[in-house]
Amino acid sequence: MAPRTNRKWTLKSRPKGMVSESNFELVTEPTPELADGQVLVKTLLVAFDPAMRGWLDDRESYVPPVGIGEVMRAAAVGQVVESASRKLAVGDLVTGTTGWQEYALVDLEHPTMFGSVTKLPEGATPEQALSIFGITGLTAYFGLLDVGKPKEGDVVLVSGAAGATGSVAAQIARIKGASKVVGIAGGPEKCKWLVERAGLDAAIDYKSEDVRRRMKEECPKGVDVFFDNVGGEILNAALVNMAQGGRIVLCGGISGYNADSPPPGPSNIMELVIRRCRMEGFIVIDYLSRTAEAAADMAKWAASGELIAEVDVQEGMENVPGCLNRLFEGRNLGKQLCRVGEPE
Amino acid sequence: MAPRTNRKWTLKSRPKGMVSESNFELVTEPTPELADGQVLVKTLLVAFDPAMRGWLDDRESYVPPVGIGEVMRAAAVGQVVESASRKLAVGDLVTGTTGWQEYALVDLEHPTMFGSVTKLPEGATPEQALSIFGITGLTAYFGLLDVGKPKEGDVVLVSGAAGATGSVAAQIARIKGASKVVGIAGGPEKCKWLVERAGLDAAIDYKSEDVRRRMKEECPKGVDVFFDNVGGEILNAALVNMAQGGRIVLCGGISGYNADSPPPGPSNIMELVIRRCRMEGFIVIDYLSRTAEAAADMAKWAASGELIAEVDVQEGMENVPGCLNRLFEGRNLGKQLCRVGEPE
Repeated sequence: MAPRTNRKWTLKSRPKGMVSESNFELVTEPTPELADGQVLVKTLLVAFDPAMRGWLDDRESYVPPVGIGEVMRAAAVGQVVESASRKLAVGDLVTGTTGWQEYALVDLEHPTMFGSVTKLPEGATPEQALSIFGITGLTAYFGLLDVGKPKEGDVVLVSGAAGATGSVAAQIARIKGASKVVGIAGGPEKCKWLVERAGLDAAIDYKSEDVRRRMKEECPKGVDVFFDNVGGEILNAALVNMAQGGRIVLCGGISGYNADSPPPGPSNIMELVIRRCRMEGFIVIDYLSRTAEAAADMAKWAASGELIAEVDVQEGMENVPGCLNRLFEGRNLGKQLCRVGEPE
Repeated sequence: MAPRTNRKWTLKSRPKGMVSESNFELVTEPTPELADGQVLVKTLLVAFDPAMRGWLDDRESYVPPVGIGEVMRAAAVGQVVESASRKLAVGDLVTGTTGWQEYALVDLEHPTMFGSVTKLPEGATPEQALSIFGITGLTAYFGLLDVGKPKEGDVVLVSGAAGATGSVAAQIARIKGASKVVGIAGGPEKCKWLVERAGLDAAIDYKSEDVRRRMKEECPKGVDVFFDNVGGEILNAALVNMAQGGRIVLCGGISGYNADSPPPGPSNIMELVIRRCRMEGFIVIDYLSRTAEAAADMAKWAASGELIAEVDVQEGMENVPGCLNRLFEGRNLGKQLCRVGEPE
């Protein structure tokens, strides 16, 4: 095969605060010859997740940081365009953590944690594969159900509710019989979407409303399950609005991901004692062996129209680094994606 | 019966910060005539608990605040000295929330939340009734076992470890097969007691040592269960020393009880996510129906010498308000008590 030209965004320097395009370098190189067992995957859609910001800091965490000079790690959907493996054929649509690059060489015989791909789930579109069937969908599913353990009739509050994870968590809460689901999001457009499209009972606009007071108004008897993607002041406000025996699912803290040092902790933490509440963190990679279970439910709900997999698709390889910041600027509604190639 | 003279400490003003004797008033009055079903209890020992500080603030909590002019609420052991009830006889030793007073009138026919007494547990001394069989012992028992759920071989860390609750929680962790139990306390005397008398594996002196570094040294693989009575900086340090899947039992936050506004929250809170940890608060009154279960274990362990019920007994009705501050000054080793009367 004649080599193709791969463009890839590698990490040049570690960001302080928000990432800048100058933290990355767009490198051009020919694609390599395939060895036995390898495939070449052309990237179609790249996915973005707030956790990616944490991978850029040089510190111990649940996954190693991205190294300087390495391709930026990211989930993506692609198409097999060359194959030296009997496991995948040219034309197959696949998903994996192939990163910010136009072509990924994948060795199916020697898969590594971030170096493998699998076919898309049966019937899933590329967008769905990266949203409800992707990391953020699984995070919402297992975080809400396994960590939050909502009971029918519970009052469920979700922060970052118009984001990829929050929007799915909130909809699953509704599907599972919550008596009320309230979402917190930034701006009237997102709040309108939450109520009119995602079927939530109410939305709180943290940019223009007094969040603590509005929580109290919407949840006068307290919140049974709070699914938190934001941390900071929103978490602190929720602590004084929890019902007795409530559960706080600590999914993430996007409000602090760009801080140089940890932002102030929640001063209302002792409310956990008075209200007998549980606050629990989790990482979705601990649940990956149960992916099929989530996928079956998600497929059913998506097919019936009960669950909307909203996506925000930007375009162009050159716009990839900027898409990460869209998450922190709150510009995305649903899963942030960027289209970098077309199927052949 | 000729009336006796009762002296009682009533709440005169709500304290800001540490309580002062001037927040209370020592009122002298004759004891009342008994009506049918009532007994007069002479107070022998008054017990002190950090939670009592919270009852002095005029705010919503798990129990109503003590009202201005009311006798200060406190657990105590007393002796029935007059009886107009067939339920208790003169001479019986009893325990209940009879407060800071020398004589309490108790109506056994119309018991209220804080207005009843029961006989001491079989075989218990007055000191044991207020320590291992009292609120702090029950708090340690249910907090550690039901909330912390230690598994055999776990590494257990306890703050406020020389206090009434912490010392019992740490010893129960040892009895239940922790591979290592580490206590945090203030000063060499307490640390020595923890290792030499209470049988802990190690002690950290927060007054003279770098707590975060010492936690790491003593628990290099991380803490499985952290039983926290202190909050603040010690909780924050523990968050970066938890093992994956660890549990933080939020029992109390004595470091902040005298603050006018909530002290800063733990800035390391997002470690709960990375380390997949659970932090859970509880209030012992939710477990009171299971008192017998705890008492049976405690009695067995105390009899075998495995569990020491350490007490710090001060003397004199006039010294009662000051005993509450001893808790916040860290002057007590084990359960803080004050002897205010002798049995007749």
